[in-house]
Amino acid sequence: MSFVLKEADPQLQAAVAHTRQVVAQLHAELPRWGLVVWTAGNVSERVPGADLFVIKPSGVSYDELSPDVMVVCDLEGHKVTDGTPEWLTPSSDTAAHAYVYRHMPEVGGIVHTHSTYATAWAARGEEIPCVLTMMGDEFGGPIPVGPFALIGDDSIGRGIVETLKNSRSRAVLMKNHGPFTVGRDGRDAVKAAAMCEEVARTIHIAREGGDLAPIAQHHIDSLWDRYQNVYGQHEE
Amino acid sequence: MSFVLKEADPQLQAAVAHTRQVVAQLHAELPRWGLVVWTAGNVSERVPGADLFVIKPSGVSYDELSPDVMVVCDLEGHKVTDGTPEWLTPSSDTAAHAYVYRHMPEVGGIVHTHSTYATAWAARGEEIPCVLTMMGDEFGGPIPVGPFALIGDDSIGRGIVETLKNSRSRAVLMKNHGPFTVGRDGRDAVKAAAMCEEVARTIHIAREGGDLAPIAQHHIDSLWDRYQNVYGQHEE
Amino acid sequence: MSFVLKEADPQLQAAVAHTRQVVAQLHAELPRWGLVVWTAGNVSERVPGADLFVIKPSGVSYDELSPDVMVVCDLEGHKVTDGTPEWLTPSSDTAAHAYVYRHMPEVGGIVHTHSTYATAWAARGEEIPCVLTMMGDEFGGPIPVGPFALIGDDSIGRGIVETLKNSRSRAVLMKNHGPFTVGRDGRDAVKAAAMCEEVARTIHIAREGGDLAPIAQHHIDSLWDRYQNVYGQHEE
Amino acid sequence: MSFVLKEADPQLQAAVAHTRQVVAQLHAELPRWGLVVWTAGNVSERVPGADLFVIKPSGVSYDELSPDVMVVCDLEGHKVTDGTPEWLTPSSDTAAHAYVYRHMPEVGGIVHTHSTYATAWAARGEEIPCVLTMMGDEFGGPIPVGPFALIGDDSIGRGIVETLKNSRSRAVLMKNHGPFTVGRDGRDAVKAAAMCEEVARTIHIAREGGDLAPIAQHHIDSLWDRYQNVYGQHEE
Repeated sequence: MSFVLKEADPQLQAAVAHTRQVVAQLHAELPRWGLVVWTAGNVSERVPGADLFVIKPSGVSYDELSPDVMVVCDLEGHKVTDGTPEWLTPSSDTAAHAYVYRHMPEVGGIVHTHSTYATAWAARGEEIPCVLTMMGDEFGGPIPVGPFALIGDDSIGRGIVETLKNSRSRAVLMKNHGPFTVGRDGRDAVKAAAMCEEVARTIHIAREGGDLAPIAQHHIDSLWDRYQNVYGQHEE
Repeated sequence: MSFVLKEADPQLQAAVAHTRQVVAQLHAELPRWGLVVWTAGNVSERVPGADLFVIKPSGVSYDELSPDVMVVCDLEGHKVTDGTPEWLTPSSDTAAHAYVYRHMPEVGGIVHTHSTYATAWAARGEEIPCVLTMMGDEFGGPIPVGPFALIGDDSIGRGIVETLKNSRSRAVLMKNHGPFTVGRDGRDAVKAAAMCEEVARTIHIAREGGDLAPIAQHHIDSLWDRYQNVYGQHEE
Repeated sequence: MSFVLKEADPQLQAAVAHTRQVVAQLHAELPRWGLVVWTAGNVSERVPGADLFVIKPSGVSYDELSPDVMVVCDLEGHKVTDGTPEWLTPSSDTAAHAYVYRHMPEVGGIVHTHSTYATAWAARGEEIPCVLTMMGDEFGGPIPVGPFALIGDDSIGRGIVETLKNSRSRAVLMKNHGPFTVGRDGRDAVKAAAMCEEVARTIHIAREGGDLAPIAQHHIDSLWDRYQNVYGQHEE
Repeated sequence: MSFVLKEADPQLQAAVAHTRQVVAQLHAELPRWGLVVWTAGNVSERVPGADLFVIKPSGVSYDELSPDVMVVCDLEGHKVTDGTPEWLTPSSDTAAHAYVYRHMPEVGGIVHTHSTYATAWAARGEEIPCVLTMMGDEFGGPIPVGPFALIGDDSIGRGIVETLKNSRSRAVLMKNHGPFTVGRDGRDAVKAAAMCEEVARTIHIAREGGDLAPIAQHHIDSLWDRYQNVYGQHEE
C-alpha cells in the first residue's frame, strides 16, 4: 500500500475516475443478463497507463454500486490509499484478478460470476463442447475447466492463467466454483461472461434432448478466424 | 451501391423513414420476450414499393437502436448511400436476409435470433414435432431444420429458402446455429420468433417428462386451415 | 345478439363498466407471472347480476388492453351491442368460456393460458400428481387432463366442464393445448392459473431428479379441508 | 393477547416501527429474486429487546405490503393489540416462526418460501449435496431435509428446529413443502433464502448433465471456517 493516489498526476487521476465510472456501470449488466444472485459477482478493469485496476467492494449490494464505492488496487491486489473510507475493502476475489493482470498483460478486464449454467458445468468439472456457431465465433472452441482451488493464496489466479494460456477461450470454468472471463477491457469481459452463460445454458439443454451434432474442427477454425480477423470489433 | 437514397422521390424517402422506425421498435421486442443476449439478434423489414430493406447495424447494443442507426440495404445486401455515418455497417447476417427477400417475394420481414431452446434443437439438428394446438395454428406442422452453413457466401440464405419452400412453417432452425423466421412484415416475423422459442421450450420440457401425445395429421390440417382462412389477421 | 347494452338500466351499466376494469387489470397479471407469450392468453369475468361476461378481444397486444377494448358477451358467447367498434371481436376461445359459465353457475371467472410447464404436461396428456402441500391447499389433489378438442363447436367447453365436475381441482389441462382455470371471480381464476403453472414447474423439476415422495391421501384431505373451511378467503 | 403495544414505552414503540419498515422492505426482495408466486412467501424479524416479532399479514398481495399492514406477534404467535385493523391477521405460517424464535434465541429473522428448485428437492425429500464453493461458504455442507408436517400444532416449528440444530446450514427443506431459512436478522435470512434457491437450481442442473464432482470434507471445512471467521460480515 505504498501508492497514494491523491499525490498522483492529474492525468492518472482522471483515468482512475473514468475507470471507476465504467466499472460501476458494468456491474449493472450482471443482474440485467441474469448472471448474479445477491452480491455474488464482480467486474474489474485495468486503469490505462498504470499498474492499477478498479474492482467491486466486498459485500455491497448491486443497488449501491456507484463509482464512489469502487476500490482501486495495485497489481498485488492491495487497495491504494485514495481517500475512500476504510471499510470499503476490495472483493474477496481480488487476489485472483490481480494475479491475472500481472501475468496476462493483454487482459484489460476480468469478470467473475456464479452464473447458473456455467457453474453447473463447473460442478461436474466438465468442459463445454463447441457445437454452436456463436461459440466458435466467441470462444474458438470448448470452454475449458480450471482446477479446484481455494481462496487464500495464488492458486485461483494461477489456475485461471494456466488454463487460459492453453486455450483460445477467454472464459474458464473453475471446478466446483464458477466462471472467470477476461477481455480487452471490462465491457469485453462482461460480454464474454454473458455469452459463456448463454452457451452453457443452450448446450446443456440441447444435450438433455439427445446427441449433439458436432461441428468439424476446420469449420470451428473458420468461424474463429473470420470473427477475429475480418469483423474485428463488430459484435455480431 | 449505385443507389443514392437522398436523390429518391419523397414518397420513397417517407417509406424508408417509416420502416426505420418500425424496425427500431421491433428490436425492443426481442429482449422483451427473452430472445436475445447481448447484441445477438436482428430484425429486418422490406421497404414497401422498393427493392430495399432496413436492418440492424452491426455491433450496436440494444439500448442504442434508434431509427437513425438502422441501415438501409438493396436486395444484394449492400448498404445504400443515404447520409448515415460510414461506421454504421449492416448486421453480418445481412447477406442471408437479402437472399431471402430476393427469392421469396411474399416475405416482408425476417428475424434471426439465437433464442435458447430453438437453438438447442438446432444444436442436435432435430426438427420440433407438432404436438401443440398453438403450433398447428402458427406453423401448420413441425419446425424444420436447415443445413449447416457458414457466413461468407449465399449458403445460409439458400439453406433458409430451400427449407422453408418445402414446409408450411415460417420458422427454420439452421443447424448448429439458430432460428430464422419470416413473415408478412417485420412484426409478423417477430411474432413467429417468439412463438418458435415458446414451442421449442414447451415441447423440450414435455419430452423430458416422458412420451409426447401426438396430434393426428388431419387435426393439424384443421388447426392450420382455420387459423389461415377463418381467423385471418386475428392473432389468437 | 338481441341484447343492447346501452338500453340497459344504469346499475347493470355500472356493473359492466366495473367488470371491464377488473378484467383489463387482471390481464396485466398474466405477463407479470410469466404465463403468456405474445397475445396467447385470456381472462374473463361474469358480470354480477346478469347473464353476461367480459373477455379479452381477439388479437390485441397486452400493451393495449384498456377497459375500453374489452368485449361484453352473453352466455352464448355472442358480443352484445354496446357501442364498441365492430372490429373488436371476442377472443377465439370465447365459446369455451361461455359454455363453462352456462354449465357451472358457481364459476365467476375463467382464465386460459399456454403457460409453459402446464402445457408441457398437457402435451403428454399426463395429470400432475399432488406431492406438494401448497398443491393440496389449492387444488385438493391432482390437476386432471381434459380431452383433445378443436375450436369450432362445444367440445372444448364440454371437455373442461366434464373434467372439472369429477375433480376438486379448479384447473384442467386440455390435452395438447394448455390449462384452463376457474374461480369465484376473475382474480381467483388468475391465482389458480399462476399456482397451476408453479406446481407444474416444481413437480416437473422434482421428477427430473428422481422419485417423488408421495403425500398420503388423508393428509391431502386435511390440507384441502383446512384451506377451504378454516382459512376461507385467506390466501396463504 | 395480554400485551397491548400502545401502552409500551416509546423506545419499544420505535423499535417496532423500525422492524415493521425493515420487514416490509424485505418482502420486496422475494419477488426480485424470483422466490415467490402470488402471496406464497413470508419474512419475519425479531424486535430487538423484546419478546416480539413482525411478520407478513395473511392473504395480502406483494404490491400492498407497506409497514402499516405488517403484523406484530408475541413469541406464542399471537397478534398483539396495537391499533391495526382486526382483519389483518398474521400469516398462516406464524406458529412455525414463533416456535423457532422461542427455541433458537440466536435467530433474529426467518424466511419461508416455496421457491421452485428448493421445493423440488423437498418434493423428493432429498438433501442438497455440497458441491459448490459458494455453498461451502454459505451453508457449510449439505442443506438438510426436515420431516413432513401439517399446519395446526407445533410440528412444523419443531421439525425446523430439530433439523437445524443438527446442521451448520441455516436453511432446511421441509418435506413436500418448501424451504425455511434463518439468520442473524431478517436480511440475513432473506440472503439465505436466495442462496438456497440458487444452489438448489445450480446443483439440480449440474446433476441432470452427469455425475457431480465432490468437494473433500476438509475443503468444505476450510470454506466454512474462512467465511465465518475471517470475512465476518462480508458477503462475498
